[in-house]
Amino acid sequence: MAFRPVVALAGGVGAARFLTGLVQVVPPEQLTVIVNTGDDRDFFGLRVCPDLDIVTYTLAGRVNRETGWGLADDRFECLGALQQLRSDAWFRLGDRDLATHIHRSERLRSGQTLVEITAGIADSFGVHVELLPMSEDAATTIIVRGDGSRCDFEEYLVRDGSPDDVAQVDLALAERAQPAPGVIEAIRNATQLLICPSNPIVSIAPIRAVRGVEAALRERADAVAVSPIIGGRPVKGPADRLLRAQGTEVSARGVAGLYSGITKAMVIDEVDVDQLADLEALGLRALATQTLMTTPEIAKGVAEAALSLCAEPA
Amino acid sequence: MAFRPVVALAGGVGAARFLTGLVQVVPPEQLTVIVNTGDDRDFFGLRVCPDLDIVTYTLAGRVNRETGWGLADDRFECLGALQQLRSDAWFRLGDRDLATHIHRSERLRSGQTLVEITAGIADSFGVHVELLPMSEDAATTIIVRGDGSRCDFEEYLVRDGSPDDVAQVDLALAERAQPAPGVIEAIRNATQLLICPSNPIVSIAPIRAVRGVEAALRERADAVAVSPIIGGRPVKGPADRLLRAQGTEVSARGVAGLYSGITKAMVIDEVDVDQLADLEALGLRALATQTLMTTPEIAKGVAEAALSLCAEPA
Repeated sequence: MAFRPVVALAGGVGAARFLTGLVQVVPPEQLTVIVNTGDDRDFFGLRVCPDLDIVTYTLAGRVNRETGWGLADDRFECLGALQQLRSDAWFRLGDRDLATHIHRSERLRSGQTLVEITAGIADSFGVHVELLPMSEDAATTIIVRGDGSRCDFEEYLVRDGSPDDVAQVDLALAERAQPAPGVIEAIRNATQLLICPSNPIVSIAPIRAVRGVEAALRERADAVAVSPIIGGRPVKGPADRLLRAQGTEVSARGVAGLYSGITKAMVIDEVDVDQLADLEALGLRALATQTLMTTPEIAKGVAEAALSLCAEPA
Repeated sequence: MAFRPVVALAGGVGAARFLTGLVQVVPPEQLTVIVNTGDDRDFFGLRVCPDLDIVTYTLAGRVNRETGWGLADDRFECLGALQQLRSDAWFRLGDRDLATHIHRSERLRSGQTLVEITAGIADSFGVHVELLPMSEDAATTIIVRGDGSRCDFEEYLVRDGSPDDVAQVDLALAERAQPAPGVIEAIRNATQLLICPSNPIVSIAPIRAVRGVEAALRERADAVAVSPIIGGRPVKGPADRLLRAQGTEVSARGVAGLYSGITKAMVIDEVDVDQLADLEALGLRALATQTLMTTPEIAKGVAEAALSLCAEPA
């Protein structure tokens, strides 16, 4: 088996934008992306894999750019009809997007693996990057709320609007999950190993929690991360609330601390240039550049910055 | 348990139109419709029940009037996306229509019965007629083709365009199916028993084939049927090809022969008035009226004609 030289750990929207930069610099055929499946869940019997789909749709140039998820110009006719039939149709699934979930669910029930199905979907969308779900096993990330109640991540994020009441993030299922075939080998054989600008708590930590992944990352200890925090705030999503919940500073420096032992370097935003010294004190090489990826050119620049750090010694 | 006094056996489009007439004459709460499920099948893991849905959508006033099936003003975005993912997306399922199948499939997998689910869907659509699927069991109607190959009815009708190459209709699965709870009791306790103008071979025969149904019908032998054949042709669908395949004349008279032993009377179209004597020779009371149900008023007239025949002695 031939391994792809560039390997990235990825969550959703931020990762997907970064990857559109990376494929401008690295041929897609040389890139493996290990994707978080901790947010996956069934909606009305259909398996939805938010991060896999965001990455696929974004790399295909088909994503809804306003939201960062779903397909551009999609409609919500089916969801509207589902809402008349049942009370649990709160997740926004567009009509064309639903085809992905219907297809995946049918293939899973017929016995295909998520790895195979994901590859088939990517192929249908003309995506030549290898997308590897982190695991074939259920690895649902559970959010423990301030009142002690438990819900999955999409319930917290979408249904409840991600309030600031997170007590704990429970990755017990990911910890019991086996890595999907190819995941450990991809990490071990990578020439350049990247951590996309994703939520460290609910996107990257679940991947690290899967059996054998953290050990493989620590054995190398040379990943290059891109900070998802710019100027003390996440670009999108509730990373600030999740970081605070576990007492981590909402900053590039705070994220760097979480990645201690697996990274050798980090790309941070130019507005955080004052944190370079702190990162170097943590033993990390660091580079500050424009990381708010509002254009393909900026995304390309972030990818180039990350790859340049890969080339430097640990 | 209170039984509803008016009970009708039904297939798809013709039955649904007749039932819109019937509910103008009989309160919906007094009507039970036993619906063919021989055409049911899974498409990409979603359970589609064509006849149940046609009847539900039509009674709700929501059916696509041009086609007779599906929902009015529905779109096909999801199907289009499915066609890019897989080669088996040939059945026309609209975006809002899909919600019905997604919901039903999820409920079936969760352990609800088709009877319960069908009642819930009807209720969501504001339909107060009791719709009873003929069976909870798989009862797929198999079409044996001239070349000996076998397919289900939707494959014959939609995928292949219902060619004139039917060798045989195989109801072996319906013959092994148990009637859904309430089916036999509804027939036994009916005050008026009707056979809708449906395909006698692939809509009514599968219901009759279910265990115990034919015996319950023969015990009474007082059903009133409406002929689905007008002037030697079906209004819609391949009834002519199916009747010919088993050597039955494509006429009201031919259909009356198939219903021998279970009917006491038949409503036929006014263009077939010359067949009244033949029907009487078969021992049937008969009445000729306008039966091409292009307006609600005509459908009401057909229902009134059928009910008037119910009132006469066998």
